Amino acid sequence: MGADAAPRVEILGALCAVDEADMEVVLVGDEARVRAILAEAGPARRDGRLSVQHAPEIITTTDSPAAAVKHKKKSSMRVCFELAKTGEVDAVVSAGNSGAMLACGLFVLGRLPGVERPAIVTTFPTKTGQCALLDMGANVDPRPTVLAQFGVLGSVYARLRHKKARPRVGLLSNGSEEHKGTVLTRETHQLLCRARQAAPAGGPGAEFDYVGYVEGRDIFKGEVDVIVTDGFTGNVMLKSLEGLVEAVFDMMRAEVMRGEPWVKLGAWLMQPALRRFKRRTDHAETGGAPLVGVEGVAMICHGGSDSRAIKNALLVARDFAEMKFFDELTQAIASHAFVWHDESASPSPKTSTGILPS
Amino acid sequence: MGADAAPRVEILGALCAVDEADMEVVLVGDEARVRAILAEAGPARRDGRLSVQHAPEIITTTDSPAAAVKHKKKSSMRVCFELAKTGEVDAVVSAGNSGAMLACGLFVLGRLPGVERPAIVTTFPTKTGQCALLDMGANVDPRPTVLAQFGVLGSVYARLRHKKARPRVGLLSNGSEEHKGTVLTRETHQLLCRARQAAPAGGPGAEFDYVGYVEGRDIFKGEVDVIVTDGFTGNVMLKSLEGLVEAVFDMMRAEVMRGEPWVKLGAWLMQPALRRFKRRTDHAETGGAPLVGVEGVAMICHGGSDSRAIKNALLVARDFAEMKFFDELTQAIASHAFVWHDESASPSPKTSTGILPS
Repeated sequence: MGADAAPRVEILGALCAVDEADMEVVLVGDEARVRAILAEAGPARRDGRLSVQHAPEIITTTDSPAAAVKHKKKSSMRVCFELAKTGEVDAVVSAGNSGAMLACGLFVLGRLPGVERPAIVTTFPTKTGQCALLDMGANVDPRPTVLAQFGVLGSVYARLRHKKARPRVGLLSNGSEEHKGTVLTRETHQLLCRARQAAPAGGPGAEFDYVGYVEGRDIFKGEVDVIVTDGFTGNVMLKSLEGLVEAVFDMMRAEVMRGEPWVKLGAWLMQPALRRFKRRTDHAETGGAPLVGVEGVAMICHGGSDSRAIKNALLVARDFAEMKFFDELTQAIASHAFVWHDESASPSPKTSTGILPS
Repeated sequence: MGADAAPRVEILGALCAVDEADMEVVLVGDEARVRAILAEAGPARRDGRLSVQHAPEIITTTDSPAAAVKHKKKSSMRVCFELAKTGEVDAVVSAGNSGAMLACGLFVLGRLPGVERPAIVTTFPTKTGQCALLDMGANVDPRPTVLAQFGVLGSVYARLRHKKARPRVGLLSNGSEEHKGTVLTRETHQLLCRARQAAPAGGPGAEFDYVGYVEGRDIFKGEVDVIVTDGFTGNVMLKSLEGLVEAVFDMMRAEVMRGEPWVKLGAWLMQPALRRFKRRTDHAETGGAPLVGVEGVAMICHGGSDSRAIKNALLVARDFAEMKFFDELTQAIASHAFVWHDESASPSPKTSTGILPS
């Protein structure tokens, strides 16, 4: 019941998913509304691979996440996570309130052993392929140890999902030199350097390649596979990129409209290239952003998802459930404990500094 | 001597500026190199409005800002600021190390009365006009009072430079609701709300309209005139936007190249619209980013500036010097002291929190 166009897009997406792949989908929500849309969609020819679980409440996008999850026990989102907790389903997919998804992950599923905080991982296209970014909004003001763990969690994600044998992990900063960054990034850098130092010995650090600071202008070059940042910076950056793409196309369209007739003809002739570009950069293609670091598989979709986005997220969620994604994450977190172990014992306080004495 | 293509672009830019406007330019740098390029450029028909001041040293982009400014006393950048300090020139323009520009501003010119930290202000195009963003990199990990001052400094900038009668000021965050943001943004929001509360009484708060949190996806809509953020977030965001624009055009070009012949023809016909778009979004048109909050006018240009960018920055610097920009800033800072006054006395420590208890 979470998408802007819920529950229609979820239902149509689920119908496509069970047609396309060997999987079952439980639709959780207002049973009467769900059954009405299912009936519209045609005869039930899906051999019982689609079922409906009633849930009378809905968590809205304006609900406070923690309160909603505690008090709306009969909400579709909470019921989904309860089904995952008891093992009746292998994964949860929702286009609802992402803060509430995080809260459900924490309160219902619980964190994986050793994980301080889960992260929301998004994928964006680069010139040469794809890059995973975490965190995109779950954690503002995190500790350095949390960001160091994101490096490990993200590298497992890039290995399993994007098939990168030894993912290159970068830490987002305002410059590539070591003296750049905030107190948070400088301390995180120190922690991730421990993994790099252990790598040549063939130890656990060898599973990924920590490349140090990366700048905003480098993230589309395809030189890193995983970008680590706090949820505030990640969210601001991704939303501004989304806004820019929209603005660029709006401004280009305006320039074409006030152009000469041949400019308009040119734009029309170019449509196929534009469509290919849009397909390559469309969030509906990426199949949602997983919540990584909880005891289970949970995919968070964009509120504006269409049925194709939901279908893709269901297929990706199925893949993750099959590959025992969280077993791999748990192992990686355990084997990299040396990276953040000392720091967990005595976290240094955050202090305010500028790049120069004032 | 600061641009990637220095000193040629600076010299050609200065030649254009003195041709175009009633102003004098002092070229500061390696005198022999500067005179050689001037001689190449043709006869000296500028009635003595162009002069050369020798400076044997250069601050490079890899120099540590504070150390370079202290020890390279004969550097072109430092000499420029000394000329501004003694009143021999009214403004400084440079495409060099921006950290060193900030350091020169602080050490040589000094801060304006009441200003905690100066900021670098950039301008970017929106669907309806222009928006000023500060800070774009001078201040990482600032205090909330510093950000509140940026709101005031930015509003003066938008009023004088972008002719906005009552600029709308937004605080960059990861969501529009008050409970979103970091400890820093939430405390800054409280401070800026004081200005908003004082506004109806016709007091100093009425000079700008604080609209609260703005999200990354809203910044191009033209609904705010000034965006306030810390230098880390501002720098990461602007550089990623720069990287995205480059990547979008590269990816579009690749799609066109592997397209049908009519797609290529279409792209060729569309060139005029593309050129207009590029002109509208080109940083060379904006004339550099001023360092705001120091006792004087200093414009920081992009390292990749061409002579047109330098010329535009010189013309903007001239305008600012004429309008007594820093007198206006000093007045605004003094009249808004009630916004940050209490907080300056007892700064609250920064603490680490997530959006949910972990």
